[in-house]
Amino acid sequence: MPVKDNSQIITIKDIARKFKCSPSTVSRALNDNPVINEETRKTIQEYAQRMGYQRNIISLSLLNKSSKTLGVILPNINHFHESSMLEGLQSVFQPLGYLLNICVTNESYSLEKQYIERLLANRVDGIFLSVSQETYDEGHYEHIENITKRNIPLVYIDRKYDGTTGTGVTVDDYEGAFMATQHLIEIGCRRIAHLRGPKGMTVSELRFNGYRDCLLKHDLEVNENLILTTNFEVESAIEPTQSLLDLAEKPDAIFGVNDHVCIGAMSVIRERNIKIPQEIALIGFDDSPIAQYLFPPLSSVQRQSRAIGLTASDLLLSQLNNKLLSSRVLPTKLIIRESSKKY
Amino acid sequence: MPVKDNSQIITIKDIARKFKCSPSTVSRALNDNPVINEETRKTIQEYAQRMGYQRNIISLSLLNKSSKTLGVILPNINHFHESSMLEGLQSVFQPLGYLLNICVTNESYSLEKQYIERLLANRVDGIFLSVSQETYDEGHYEHIENITKRNIPLVYIDRKYDGTTGTGVTVDDYEGAFMATQHLIEIGCRRIAHLRGPKGMTVSELRFNGYRDCLLKHDLEVNENLILTTNFEVESAIEPTQSLLDLAEKPDAIFGVNDHVCIGAMSVIRERNIKIPQEIALIGFDDSPIAQYLFPPLSSVQRQSRAIGLTASDLLLSQLNNKLLSSRVLPTKLIIRESSKKY
Repeated sequence: MPVKDNSQIITIKDIARKFKCSPSTVSRALNDNPVINEETRKTIQEYAQRMGYQRNIISLSLLNKSSKTLGVILPNINHFHESSMLEGLQSVFQPLGYLLNICVTNESYSLEKQYIERLLANRVDGIFLSVSQETYDEGHYEHIENITKRNIPLVYIDRKYDGTTGTGVTVDDYEGAFMATQHLIEIGCRRIAHLRGPKGMTVSELRFNGYRDCLLKHDLEVNENLILTTNFEVESAIEPTQSLLDLAEKPDAIFGVNDHVCIGAMSVIRERNIKIPQEIALIGFDDSPIAQYLFPPLSSVQRQSRAIGLTASDLLLSQLNNKLLSSRVLPTKLIIRESSKKY
Repeated sequence: MPVKDNSQIITIKDIARKFKCSPSTVSRALNDNPVINEETRKTIQEYAQRMGYQRNIISLSLLNKSSKTLGVILPNINHFHESSMLEGLQSVFQPLGYLLNICVTNESYSLEKQYIERLLANRVDGIFLSVSQETYDEGHYEHIENITKRNIPLVYIDRKYDGTTGTGVTVDDYEGAFMATQHLIEIGCRRIAHLRGPKGMTVSELRFNGYRDCLLKHDLEVNENLILTTNFEVESAIEPTQSLLDLAEKPDAIFGVNDHVCIGAMSVIRERNIKIPQEIALIGFDDSPIAQYLFPPLSSVQRQSRAIGLTASDLLLSQLNNKLLSSRVLPTKLIIRESSKKY
């Protein structure tokens, strides 16, 4: 069985000893250099393969100055949005021979800092970064500035911080939330509740601001009793929705910070035999693949998750070619389904 | 703006020149060696920080023989199961100072091979591997055997291949499927359909076998018309479910290969105003967080996804300490909800 013992790693020198030739002959044979005759090349290659010889790409990368590796730092990877962004990145870089190192920070500043240090030390060719919440909260950006100081291409995906000179691709969350709220007003809703995301998180704040500004534009009251906090997960919407339905004056619509909180809200609403959308309309955010198959099918604000990955790839490829494209903000799209139909 | 220019990387020699001291003094100062007086240490550390100096962990790792990095190779990361496994791994290794390199193969043999080569070249301390479907199909395992040849600790998670000597943590998919089918028989169902996963995939086959063997044990017919193929995603269940409901003799239950195909099935069943579970009972697999909030709440076979990550971490840590624990198969648990209640 395999226990770790680095003394058994086979080197070019070991192979040279075995065949009584010079290390440079072995190296040429392994690189398929025609200077070495074919039979010798084959023999050496087969032996190297059999013995588990592995070219040391790290020391190669110190010479070549390219590791063909990119870092991708994300706060989490457990929802449709993140895996679609990753798919977009991978679809561009995998055919080009790049490997993606995916690092998950769980919104932790210190993990984000550690990951950046490690990626820089590993001499990645570039970094995609979606800034962690703690980093925003603490306002420490030195670790990110270190990337720029070392002239490593950096592209923000999904989240950047104010004041950075770096480029990135984000989605217009504010506009998406504004559109969703506007649509609810248009179908006649007047007491529109909001299941918001965690306080202080940029994405929560942008969506909340879009919701609030749309109400204000239409001279509707921004009622604190109708604004409750969730953590983006299904379970976190259960109690807040119960409180909303316990109000003397119930809401006639709920705008959820994402589709998952709407799934939680739907289950509470159904339990009480309240009709969606006739008594309460519902709109989520993300347009995840399950939205259209829920009961009733859920209206939702679509983020172009895969397109974020593709566009971010363009920005990074340009930087690798010493060109700098400017940041992009991708528009959102409101997908209207049964849960917010007018009756 | 940052364009890549490696000439600007600052080295220990540059710092030494700046302070007119030896490189070894700089190195000691940066390593906080008390031989160097505190003021000098601080001055040098601050300057290094300001100039974006980065310790070259790669060359360090060639000396230390440990990169404090682990590779995690997964076929995909877009469902609850995979992100929970990753969370389990991270909760053990992050506090120990290890970084996880997550590599997503999309079930591709050649990507899996490339990732393993790259991880070995980067001298990771160990690898977690969930074998890709193409690798099974092609039966080429040399790239995996290379890990063992180089004595790098290897732990399979979720999927291993027959005949490997390596250890791993898997889930008893067969037993889970058997239990689910048995439960459907116990509540009185006799025409039990199966929305199976892609043919040839181990997880699909194990679950199918559990379903089939349970039917046979109870002297029920294994009816080809009631067994239709999906690809694990919601959309892929729509047409198969429509065909099932178009049969002259409709099924009285559906066992889905995962929760997502059940969500698709539910939406078709509801459209036709067929009652769940009175007319058709439904059971999924995974017990993902949304299962209990669906309409009706979905019975499901629970995989201990996070526990796979934790147990696999134990196996790898033991190997790092030159001990070899044996493979583990974690049991599944049937969670019964409204969608398969007896009436």
